[in-house]
Amino acid sequence: MRAEIITIGDELLIGQVVDTNSAWMAQKLNENGIELFQITSVHDDREHIINALNEAFGRADIVLTTGGLGPTKDDITKQVLCEYFDTQLIEDTSVRAHIHELYKERPDVLNRLTATQWLVPQNADILPNRVGSAPLMIFHKEDKILACMPGVPYEMKIAMEEQILPYISQFKIQNLKFKIIHKTLQVTGIPESSLAILLEEYENTKPEYLHLAYLPKDGIIRLRLSSYGELTEEEMTQYFDRLKDLTKDYLIADTDEPLEMIVGNLLKARGATIATAESCTGGKLASLLNKHAGSSAFYFGSIISYDNSVKEHLLGVPEEMIKAHGVVSEEVVRVMAESVRKQIGTDYTVATSGIAGPTGGSKEKPVGTVWIAWATPEGTTAECFHLGKLREQITDRACMKALVGMIKRLEVRS
Amino acid sequence: MRAEIITIGDELLIGQVVDTNSAWMAQKLNENGIELFQITSVHDDREHIINALNEAFGRADIVLTTGGLGPTKDDITKQVLCEYFDTQLIEDTSVRAHIHELYKERPDVLNRLTATQWLVPQNADILPNRVGSAPLMIFHKEDKILACMPGVPYEMKIAMEEQILPYISQFKIQNLKFKIIHKTLQVTGIPESSLAILLEEYENTKPEYLHLAYLPKDGIIRLRLSSYGELTEEEMTQYFDRLKDLTKDYLIADTDEPLEMIVGNLLKARGATIATAESCTGGKLASLLNKHAGSSAFYFGSIISYDNSVKEHLLGVPEEMIKAHGVVSEEVVRVMAESVRKQIGTDYTVATSGIAGPTGGSKEKPVGTVWIAWATPEGTTAECFHLGKLREQITDRACMKALVGMIKRLEVRS
Repeated sequence: MRAEIITIGDELLIGQVVDTNSAWMAQKLNENGIELFQITSVHDDREHIINALNEAFGRADIVLTTGGLGPTKDDITKQVLCEYFDTQLIEDTSVRAHIHELYKERPDVLNRLTATQWLVPQNADILPNRVGSAPLMIFHKEDKILACMPGVPYEMKIAMEEQILPYISQFKIQNLKFKIIHKTLQVTGIPESSLAILLEEYENTKPEYLHLAYLPKDGIIRLRLSSYGELTEEEMTQYFDRLKDLTKDYLIADTDEPLEMIVGNLLKARGATIATAESCTGGKLASLLNKHAGSSAFYFGSIISYDNSVKEHLLGVPEEMIKAHGVVSEEVVRVMAESVRKQIGTDYTVATSGIAGPTGGSKEKPVGTVWIAWATPEGTTAECFHLGKLREQITDRACMKALVGMIKRLEVRS
Repeated sequence: MRAEIITIGDELLIGQVVDTNSAWMAQKLNENGIELFQITSVHDDREHIINALNEAFGRADIVLTTGGLGPTKDDITKQVLCEYFDTQLIEDTSVRAHIHELYKERPDVLNRLTATQWLVPQNADILPNRVGSAPLMIFHKEDKILACMPGVPYEMKIAMEEQILPYISQFKIQNLKFKIIHKTLQVTGIPESSLAILLEEYENTKPEYLHLAYLPKDGIIRLRLSSYGELTEEEMTQYFDRLKDLTKDYLIADTDEPLEMIVGNLLKARGATIATAESCTGGKLASLLNKHAGSSAFYFGSIISYDNSVKEHLLGVPEEMIKAHGVVSEEVVRVMAESVRKQIGTDYTVATSGIAGPTGGSKEKPVGTVWIAWATPEGTTAECFHLGKLREQITDRACMKALVGMIKRLEVRS
């Protein structure tokens, strides 16, 4: 069972919007045993949309589109689909009732453009959009289907989970179905090419259909094994365990979970808490730690000391220490970690101080130099890293290093 | 002059990686007068890559690929291109020298897999990759070109800016060239459909080729005017000024700059400084304010008080106040803003406290309720918002509301 995604909107092709929808949809499709073959982004243009539909139907059984369903003139997907499926727009009273309910506290939205949202293609199956005004539409083309969703990410996500995937699952029963299995581990501290040499014999002896992929990012390499229907869960686990064993010296996780989630789960399992003191990462580490639901169980707070005055007054870093060693130093980052641990009273704290650039570097401490300290019940340790040349890369990598350090310190205790 | 992007990698099609490269490349192409027609994401698969190349060359003059150039077995782009362009791999001594220079302090990376990186297709133009081992390759196909870059975002960005775009510009001289102009303004406080009704006459009387697009996100609607060669900068400015005038009651910016950059520029222009006190936004607002280079001029620091103990001990919120009004209340958020202003000593502070969910909501204060306070030289004001139901949506929107509030307060003073 093969799917394709077509994302529709000029904003994608002039770079005004990053397409985050496709990756999320790809994950959900894979989880449901549906292989995603291709993602195509096209303009809000009649001919372009029609060509993309024809090409996608030539390769896939299920085509999913996002975007172009708004009430404004630039959105044309619904009209183009009426032409493509040789049908016309008719009023749908249930969509009309739903939209009235949705905006009952905001009557100003119920204007004549919003009213176009309850006009739907006559030969499509119409599903309600629980959180927005554009209804979802499913068209049938011989034994294939086209499902159309809005491009607004949170509307798409709810539509996909609550409406489209259940619909596809029913449809899929009549078709071939197989189990897609991906298993990912994460390693750090080894170059990608050296890792590949380490795994050379493994790669040469594994079955051809079992795919191994290397995904390096921010100093972490994710290693993914993929099987498309050939292996059972048990067989896959055997291959994966062998991979874990071969990489054990570098292994930091045997799942694809984001590192901040692994840290959170380790903290929760130990009933432990964490806080941060951040300079160069500027709150990015804090917002990672509280990104996921349930983080209030372990994440307490942070002091972001971007300016030196904040390091001195709120974190008690002595002015003379800054003068003697600079703010990007082992001494300062240790005081930061210990001070916030004392003030907030958590079991663990992480502190960062570095030169994110583009200015502020020197010969001794070039842009990319980052000191990180971890204050734990066992004491405080610090490490210096050189994390590249670009601002965003440096702060992202610093967060990853901080999290890797936390995982190591938490796992030692397990 | 038309371009297409092909992004290569299984990780994109199983949703393990979000394609952020394409949007960035799209912006750069547009800035250089090159229309991006389509983005296609394909698997690391010989036949799939070849089909995508054939289709793209059928529509565009310039094809850009990213990904699949690593030294590991899963990366096959270089081999497939040799087949496609009927050529073979040969050793490139300058790439070899460059890679030796790049890794001179990390000799462990110079293994036999890395050595495959200086094997390049014989009939391609080879350009150095300043920050990585995979060289850039440019192939010619009749009067069209294919430029291949690594998928690692920061390598791609440097390659694109320093090598590929200058190369394309030369190539383009022999071809048709026109000026693409996009102008974007940002409004808030009006539903998209009402905005479209407000602009109905404008839309009906503007030239057909002048495109108007609506991009709603996180409570902000970006309105974009686009011209592909038809209008001069001056003519475009006239249409844009009329649009600004029509939307003036809702206008928050007449550029596409991110709101945090607008806030930063307003602060810098006034020599003013800012700090934050964050509960529900958990450092996200701080990291937005210090995201861009130069932010140390105006952003000083933050106290992230996720846990109530931090609100009490570091921000001085009285325990009785929390008992009487709850942490998500005007009273608490005002104390947070004023306390951090006093402690960090900035001209402005913003404080947030809200229920990001999924738990913690009540009938009176459902998930999505967020109080925001702004403490300024003119005094402290606070506002309550209802920002949806999903955790990430709520915290993103809260950051946008906080920034919009700052823009309004800073512009009043101008």
